[in-house]
Amino acid sequence: MSTGRVETFADGVLAIAATLLILNVDSQIRETDHLARELLQIWPSYVAYAVSFLTIGIIWANHHTFMHQIERADRTFLLLTVLFLLCISFIPFPTRLVAEHIRDDGARAATVLYGITLTLTAVMFNAVWLYASVRRRLLKEDADPKVVAGITRSYRWGPVSYLVVTIVALIHPILGVALLGLVDLSWVIDSAVFAPRERATSGP
Amino acid sequence: MSTGRVETFADGVLAIAATLLILNVDSQIRETDHLARELLQIWPSYVAYAVSFLTIGIIWANHHTFMHQIERADRTFLLLTVLFLLCISFIPFPTRLVAEHIRDDGARAATVLYGITLTLTAVMFNAVWLYASVRRRLLKEDADPKVVAGITRSYRWGPVSYLVVTIVALIHPILGVALLGLVDLSWVIDSAVFAPRERATSGP
Amino acid sequence: MSTGRVETFADGVLAIAATLLILNVDSQIRETDHLARELLQIWPSYVAYAVSFLTIGIIWANHHTFMHQIERADRTFLLLTVLFLLCISFIPFPTRLVAEHIRDDGARAATVLYGITLTLTAVMFNAVWLYASVRRRLLKEDADPKVVAGITRSYRWGPVSYLVVTIVALIHPILGVALLGLVDLSWVIDSAVFAPRERATSGP
Amino acid sequence: MSTGRVETFADGVLAIAATLLILNVDSQIRETDHLARELLQIWPSYVAYAVSFLTIGIIWANHHTFMHQIERADRTFLLLTVLFLLCISFIPFPTRLVAEHIRDDGARAATVLYGITLTLTAVMFNAVWLYASVRRRLLKEDADPKVVAGITRSYRWGPVSYLVVTIVALIHPILGVALLGLVDLSWVIDSAVFAPRERATSGP
Repeated sequence: MSTGRVETFADGVLAIAATLLILNVDSQIRETDHLARELLQIWPSYVAYAVSFLTIGIIWANHHTFMHQIERADRTFLLLTVLFLLCISFIPFPTRLVAEHIRDDGARAATVLYGITLTLTAVMFNAVWLYASVRRRLLKEDADPKVVAGITRSYRWGPVSYLVVTIVALIHPILGVALLGLVDLSWVIDSAVFAPRERATSGP
Repeated sequence: MSTGRVETFADGVLAIAATLLILNVDSQIRETDHLARELLQIWPSYVAYAVSFLTIGIIWANHHTFMHQIERADRTFLLLTVLFLLCISFIPFPTRLVAEHIRDDGARAATVLYGITLTLTAVMFNAVWLYASVRRRLLKEDADPKVVAGITRSYRWGPVSYLVVTIVALIHPILGVALLGLVDLSWVIDSAVFAPRERATSGP
Repeated sequence: MSTGRVETFADGVLAIAATLLILNVDSQIRETDHLARELLQIWPSYVAYAVSFLTIGIIWANHHTFMHQIERADRTFLLLTVLFLLCISFIPFPTRLVAEHIRDDGARAATVLYGITLTLTAVMFNAVWLYASVRRRLLKEDADPKVVAGITRSYRWGPVSYLVVTIVALIHPILGVALLGLVDLSWVIDSAVFAPRERATSGP
Repeated sequence: MSTGRVETFADGVLAIAATLLILNVDSQIRETDHLARELLQIWPSYVAYAVSFLTIGIIWANHHTFMHQIERADRTFLLLTVLFLLCISFIPFPTRLVAEHIRDDGARAATVLYGITLTLTAVMFNAVWLYASVRRRLLKEDADPKVVAGITRSYRWGPVSYLVVTIVALIHPILGVALLGLVDLSWVIDSAVFAPRERATSGP
């Protein structure tokens, strides 16, 4: 089987999960007489929206990168991809909970659920990639072993980072969320710095 | 007509139906003072989410498999595909009802509706495939008759399995849902065991 | 410009509009003690869901057919397509109103709004096609004039049919909805009868 | 990396954001005894729906145009695209607020948030294009410098226009919204007038 439809389906779920995030912001404002004040008060919803959207966007970009190395799909690969997308699609739920409860007693429960969701997402992301790349099972013939090893190396930090975020959130919810923002930010900086070098090696 | 757009549209509906499932989980938690406790209490919503997502994912993977054998589409094929997707798109509704009512008097009605929906989905799935494959109506010229017969054989158990689930749900709702989980699980095990062999025969 | 992305965007809007229809059914059932009874009572929601899904599916199949004749897109074509999709995306709203109000005083307002929406959709659908086909503006060089004329002929009945439905709905709402079901049904029968002949002429 | 998946993901987010707009109209009508009257009363929701759908549609058409000039994507390009889509996906929220509050005290807050959202969207849109086009970083080898310069020239008015709209909305909310409608309308007229000339130069 070719990988075209895997990408279409994955892009669909990723795009929808990201776009549904706005419904969480939207549901915070209902029947109000002080719109300006309330729009300022729900700032955690904007932060949560931006962080989750960026997280899903980063996952999409990374998925984009590794699918580029893959030649074909088998049923196990499809199944692992479905389980990975099952995690992605769950993200909007804890996102809303974090935004809604970060300033009350529910902060711990909300941020820990958020952390667990991202940890499982990162685990499944690695599972999909490792299934395809170990012993070059589904890779393209011309996939550069150095690039493949580089991808494996950079992705394996995902589950660890998010697990640390989850544990921190269990102790101090706000610190956990702040740390998560840092994880995303590190990718943004990484892109800005490494993109030129990368471009030099990957022509059209 | 080529089949490219059929796949795009089907992937769209499948991806959206799967991603909308999270809205059902989300709607279970509203204005609460005991977030952690409520997050644990709504566990049937997580199970229902996972089972329905996995079911749609399996249907997607199977659709992926059979579209691979099909060369072209005619209007009847498009119409049958639309009716099949009409069933897919219905799935989030009974999923929520099962999650919400599995512990109260509505369990029977909810699980039976869920079972009927999946039975009709499987019937339409078979209708699409049989329309395309009987007398090789829309198949690729090089479609292997053995593979075609194998697909026909494996799919025809779908309606039967789901009808049995529905009847069991009518008598004992929780047993019906458990059985449904088993049907999904059997596919997962099947994939893990048979994938290697399959890969050997289907090169790029 | 090529037409690939026009199809992706159109398929996206069509698939999402169709899949969102289930939210209308879902919202009819809230906090109930008599689930089985209520599930039977909301039958107009199922009919409305099926009719609107089928209508969007038929429009998708027809869009599929005419895009097959088109070589390229210009800005006016993109703009007309956006306006056509704006109508498509509106369909879930009157669908819910019809399902909810067909048995009360709001039946007339709901069905007339539904009829107007479908009439405008059909008008815009024809506008897109006529813009592309008149003087073969955006057609493929090898587009068969007979096929082109046939498409033009069959589509122009759309706005007229839906306008009649709207006027009938103004006088007798339930008759209007029944008529709409007939319009859809006629396409279904048409497909089943004419598909074989069509297949004979359109090879891969 | 090729640009195919960038377009799929972008089209997905654009299509979903546009299609979700109908939920805002839908939520205005709840449990009413005077459906016809209420359907007339919520006219600002229809205007807001049409203006936002058209705005997203125009952005889609423009994105379509510039992606046509781009050969490949690097990580920074993907990141900027994600940030651009983050703005797009936000649009349904202020759209609902404007529709709901244009006739009460919240008009200023709603329209200003709408204006800020569109301004940031236009800024990110330019950032994506400028990153790709400056020193022809990601352009196709045969990208015509005149066309590239033309795109740059026409897009840079976007942020300026929307900033003016925002400032006007701060002073006079309704005037701001009217101005926004004019910005969209100018594109519509522009398309109708310039499309023929453009078509002459861009063959298949």
